[in-house]
Amino acid sequence: MNKNGSNVDQPGADEEDIVNPWEVSTHSAKGVDYDKLITRFGSTKIDDVLIQRIEKATGKPVHHLLRRGIFFSQRDMEMILDVYEKKQPFYLYTGRGPSSEAMHMGHLIPFIFTKWLQDTFDVPLVIQLTDDEKFLWKDLTLDETNHLAFENAKDIIACGFDVEKTFIFSDLDFLTNSPAFYRTICRIQKLVTYNQVKGIFGFSDSDSIGKISFPAIQAAPSFSCMFPEIFSGRTDIPCLIPCAIDQDPYFRMTRDVAPRMGCLKPALLHSTFFPALQGAQTKMSASDPNSSIFVTDTDKQIKEKINKYAFSGGGATVEEHKAKGGNCEIDVSYQYLTFFMEDDKRLEEIRKTYASGELMTGSLKMELIEILQKLVGEHRERRAEVTDDMVRQFMKPRKLKYDYPPAESKK
Amino acid sequence: MNKNGSNVDQPGADEEDIVNPWEVSTHSAKGVDYDKLITRFGSTKIDDVLIQRIEKATGKPVHHLLRRGIFFSQRDMEMILDVYEKKQPFYLYTGRGPSSEAMHMGHLIPFIFTKWLQDTFDVPLVIQLTDDEKFLWKDLTLDETNHLAFENAKDIIACGFDVEKTFIFSDLDFLTNSPAFYRTICRIQKLVTYNQVKGIFGFSDSDSIGKISFPAIQAAPSFSCMFPEIFSGRTDIPCLIPCAIDQDPYFRMTRDVAPRMGCLKPALLHSTFFPALQGAQTKMSASDPNSSIFVTDTDKQIKEKINKYAFSGGGATVEEHKAKGGNCEIDVSYQYLTFFMEDDKRLEEIRKTYASGELMTGSLKMELIEILQKLVGEHRERRAEVTDDMVRQFMKPRKLKYDYPPAESKK
Repeated sequence: MNKNGSNVDQPGADEEDIVNPWEVSTHSAKGVDYDKLITRFGSTKIDDVLIQRIEKATGKPVHHLLRRGIFFSQRDMEMILDVYEKKQPFYLYTGRGPSSEAMHMGHLIPFIFTKWLQDTFDVPLVIQLTDDEKFLWKDLTLDETNHLAFENAKDIIACGFDVEKTFIFSDLDFLTNSPAFYRTICRIQKLVTYNQVKGIFGFSDSDSIGKISFPAIQAAPSFSCMFPEIFSGRTDIPCLIPCAIDQDPYFRMTRDVAPRMGCLKPALLHSTFFPALQGAQTKMSASDPNSSIFVTDTDKQIKEKINKYAFSGGGATVEEHKAKGGNCEIDVSYQYLTFFMEDDKRLEEIRKTYASGELMTGSLKMELIEILQKLVGEHRERRAEVTDDMVRQFMKPRKLKYDYPPAESKK
Repeated sequence: MNKNGSNVDQPGADEEDIVNPWEVSTHSAKGVDYDKLITRFGSTKIDDVLIQRIEKATGKPVHHLLRRGIFFSQRDMEMILDVYEKKQPFYLYTGRGPSSEAMHMGHLIPFIFTKWLQDTFDVPLVIQLTDDEKFLWKDLTLDETNHLAFENAKDIIACGFDVEKTFIFSDLDFLTNSPAFYRTICRIQKLVTYNQVKGIFGFSDSDSIGKISFPAIQAAPSFSCMFPEIFSGRTDIPCLIPCAIDQDPYFRMTRDVAPRMGCLKPALLHSTFFPALQGAQTKMSASDPNSSIFVTDTDKQIKEKINKYAFSGGGATVEEHKAKGGNCEIDVSYQYLTFFMEDDKRLEEIRKTYASGELMTGSLKMELIEILQKLVGEHRERRAEVTDDMVRQFMKPRKLKYDYPPAESKK
């Protein structure tokens, strides 16, 4: 999986940023060129018109992650708004590959945003934990990845999801508990060739047949036919998937097979990547505790990591900083603030005064440290209250609080 | 799947018989060259020493299908006899791909032989119905292949299996009902590469990812860890697989991954192919009712088909037949008698008098017609007594009548 994940019909892709579900890398200190990625992937940039339409339809301001362009790209979001404006149902699908117990703040971004989507649109949510995927890709046993799925579910639940509106499932558990899941996988696997997954994901002939067929498993929850308990057997409920843009290849494939299955194409909202403390060019790693802020970090650890490791766009000396100002585009502490500081006015103030050299790196970092200590502290408290029984409630296949009228029968 | 199924390290294979799970073809009127196949596949010919050892171990004469070389090839049968002689447990695994409701007599051969093995060795038996495979390969829906699995189970049960010793399962049903099944599949899929299945099965890049990953599903029941209910969680019970030799590629792959999974390699007993009425060079087809004798055929249909279609090795005229004699090697009626006539003495008499020209084709066919009418008639009666409830009993995951002491714990 070390190959470029772009489409084979993009011959110049080798020189571009590498963005696929298993690798994200770039040569630019500013990080991935997202505008180029939109062109390459064929998605649509989220513009002000769309944001205004969302605000008008929901009667609420959009989340700062959307307002600030962190969720920056979409597919078929207009279709979801059409459905919502007609008071017809849709649902949300997101997920996580449980490869480690330690989740960092970057892992929480899609869940924080998904919770806002669910609260704002009041729709059901399914969350897939791909313990089978992590078994296939990592040096972990099935019991280990299955256990990690269970532990990760606690952090996800701690984001505040409502058990009456949310179904969390591990592939290993749910696949052996749900005829509709395996049947949906079979229907997808029948329609996707090796050539196609090779083109989309960059698989090679020496990859395992488990990896090669896995994309169908991540695709399946995009179709409401997979959840007869939740959707009363309705196969025509549209799906909206909030995820980081590296997951898009799965859903390009999904959208390709959907019409051939008589299913709806899922809609998507794509986010940029959460940068490592060392900068957008390096990779966060669950095995390197200094590469990011983890949800288990103490106040002291947060302070030390930000002060010591957060890549600074400021001047090398006080004099230089005051003379030339700081570079917000590459300053990781500033970037983190765009993810976590809710106050737009204060953020803009910071941006201006940092760029002008008035605000020093130490002060900028202090502001971030306080916000992270509060966020992580609150998460830690909520996480401590999540019991095994609560996880089992979320993971029980069941009807959620929504009622679905039967679909109109086809003539 | 139109490629030669032999190993890639057999460059001359293109000129040889084609034998893989999806295609069997040969240019010889005598049918496939089984001696060459043994060399190519790397299996072992069943010899008199082995047959005598089986008879000594079981205290019973072997089945005529074994005695007459119809089951002609094996892998690790000595290991199974070692285990049996030490009064240690093993189990049987065989299966069917449910692609049509109409089963012909050729389909029954492995089940007739498996029943004999089960009765003789008194061991548990698992029978896999690969409805997922037939969905992937054929123009059939999941509901259709799942229904065919259920109907085919009736014909299998009609072969006389004991419900207390036999578990029949459809992949679509059991996979979504058994954590151990999907976990075993994942473990196999992690260890097999696309290169390997391409080499073993002749897959091409334009095959679906469903086909490419399916071999792991057929491999899984070779490992007792897949059936914790039956084997009390024991993962070290050896497996013996009776099957036609075209299924061997699946189990070459299985035997290759077994040690890397810490599992035992399954043993095999391979049969030759049951010829089409039109001769060993043509293919039996469930969609061509005249290509074989079906278990649903009436006495009249059996008589007409044998008389009209069974390829004759006899002379073109009475005079020629009397002068030159008949050719048993290519005479389909004689071949069918080797499968179904139990009386060795009478069969040898027929062979001699037909070869000498004394016995006419009409009389040979009459003898076969009587045997088939009796066999099919008895099957028809037993089949009529198999209710849906009985099928559900056989298909219920459960403990069979055997008890397994816990495995010795590893130090």
